[in-house]
Amino acid sequence: MISARAVRIQGAGGPDVLTIGDLDVREPGGGELMIEVAAAGLNRADCLQRMGVYPAPKGVAPDVPGLEYAGTVSQVGPAVTRFSVGDRVMGIVGGASMSTHLVVHEREAMPVPDGMSFTDAAAIPEAFLTVFDAVHVQAGLTMGETLLVHAIASGIGTAALQLGQAAGVTVWGTSRSADKLERCAGLGLKHSIHVTDGTFAKRVRADVILDTIGAAYLKENIKALKARGRMVTIGLLGGVNGTLPLGLLLAKRATITGSVLRSRPLEEKAALVQRFTDQVLPKFADGTLRPVVDAVLPMKDVAHAHERMGNNATFGKLVLTW
Amino acid sequence: MISARAVRIQGAGGPDVLTIGDLDVREPGGGELMIEVAAAGLNRADCLQRMGVYPAPKGVAPDVPGLEYAGTVSQVGPAVTRFSVGDRVMGIVGGASMSTHLVVHEREAMPVPDGMSFTDAAAIPEAFLTVFDAVHVQAGLTMGETLLVHAIASGIGTAALQLGQAAGVTVWGTSRSADKLERCAGLGLKHSIHVTDGTFAKRVRADVILDTIGAAYLKENIKALKARGRMVTIGLLGGVNGTLPLGLLLAKRATITGSVLRSRPLEEKAALVQRFTDQVLPKFADGTLRPVVDAVLPMKDVAHAHERMGNNATFGKLVLTW
Repeated sequence: MISARAVRIQGAGGPDVLTIGDLDVREPGGGELMIEVAAAGLNRADCLQRMGVYPAPKGVAPDVPGLEYAGTVSQVGPAVTRFSVGDRVMGIVGGASMSTHLVVHEREAMPVPDGMSFTDAAAIPEAFLTVFDAVHVQAGLTMGETLLVHAIASGIGTAALQLGQAAGVTVWGTSRSADKLERCAGLGLKHSIHVTDGTFAKRVRADVILDTIGAAYLKENIKALKARGRMVTIGLLGGVNGTLPLGLLLAKRATITGSVLRSRPLEEKAALVQRFTDQVLPKFADGTLRPVVDAVLPMKDVAHAHERMGNNATFGKLVLTW
Repeated sequence: MISARAVRIQGAGGPDVLTIGDLDVREPGGGELMIEVAAAGLNRADCLQRMGVYPAPKGVAPDVPGLEYAGTVSQVGPAVTRFSVGDRVMGIVGGASMSTHLVVHEREAMPVPDGMSFTDAAAIPEAFLTVFDAVHVQAGLTMGETLLVHAIASGIGTAALQLGQAAGVTVWGTSRSADKLERCAGLGLKHSIHVTDGTFAKRVRADVILDTIGAAYLKENIKALKARGRMVTIGLLGGVNGTLPLGLLLAKRATITGSVLRSRPLEEKAALVQRFTDQVLPKFADGTLRPVVDAVLPMKDVAHAHERMGNNATFGKLVLTW
């Protein structure tokens, strides 16, 4: 057992329920690694967990947030074959990454690209794995198709923009902030829609939509799909019960899929991580992809980071470091 | 040009807008067949077209209903290789099958199983192709999974029951008629739900749902899906705008797909027909599958057939003959 330091959620509520406290972390067994965490990206799911509406899955410390990490392997289980003590790794977990120590299975972990800082690395796993899985694996987005991404300036959005461009796809991005769209132009966004009244379908027809809004955009999203279009909904910032125009869904032969990473079992996460390692990681090494980091804050300022995310004041990812 | 007799829709409205009249049918060219139609199955889409709410696709006579047929090849185009004059064939078309003559591409046509009557054959294409495509091809239903089928006593429903059983699947069927459920037990239905108040999810969790109801069952359907469940909606008898519980869709990582056959281009219909010919047709020959025919009526009684379908008085398919 290792005595770690970790962010703890005391009760449920605003950012002030977050404190730093002690956490016992068990030793790695079998094919597991102990990670000494250097940095962890912040996600909206952490804010939802803090508010008490998105509990951790079984087997994860219920009061320690954090869905991704970058750090150093400090100990290995007896069956580990891919990593050694001292290796720099990153990955997603079901929770509790905002701890100085973390145990993961080696099949869920990825090497940090050579030369990349831990703070950049910590901004990769959740955003890029989520987008790669939703848009490329599940929706089967391919060269020459059109991808529509809502909240294009978010960590997810900037990852989708870059992955789409790397795949030869035409990317359209929406935001309710004209400033953020301008900053996305600097990342190569050519087709932007400043959404002011909840509509956007008069501007674009997409083969694939990456949706983080849910109910508020549901009807407009189906309008914006091409025939045989595929929408993957991964967030519900605009509400959970929407009106679905089924007549349009049939006429377009369209598909809506709901997706989350957090609750998936080890074998599914491992399969995604292995595919990502093969297909996507090399593109960080060659400069095609790079995480967009809004700010790096010390872990003790985690409450401030939650406030910042709640105010939608970020461009790209917030990263917290020990 | 051949001078055929055909059902004509005069205006839009009730069954009384249907008459029998003349229709000019062009000669087959290229890889096309001229079919002398013996029988044609009736579908709800014919009723919708009669009411003026489901127009025929481009290139199809707009006022002649009929989406499926069985008959004899009476003439072949110069590039035809698969069929000869005198062959018995069946298939789906975008419209105008309720005519004594019909031109189709040979890649869209299937042989009528040996020994099967034209009236039985005419009850196969639309129901069995639709179900095979929706449930087996699109939703990827496999052995040991659970399939939930609404309106189990319909042509589509009885086809889904048989295809599910042939695939080693556990089939649940719903109906608002206890009598119809009893008759389905005679077809091997073991798990039936008599829906009286619009709910059914307390009884069943399904990997795949074949939905012909739409809005009225949308919320209940998502509740009834298992994790990673797939619903394919192919009909909207219960309305076109439904409330989608997106939170459940995400938590279950479920998929909703809208599907229609009618508007598909030749190449997609041909691909489906070829796969069906390989995988499903042999199961009619060996007795595993058989079309369920409610009644056979002469084509001149087409208005009566529409009334009967409108009253939900049918069990299986209505077939019209010349």
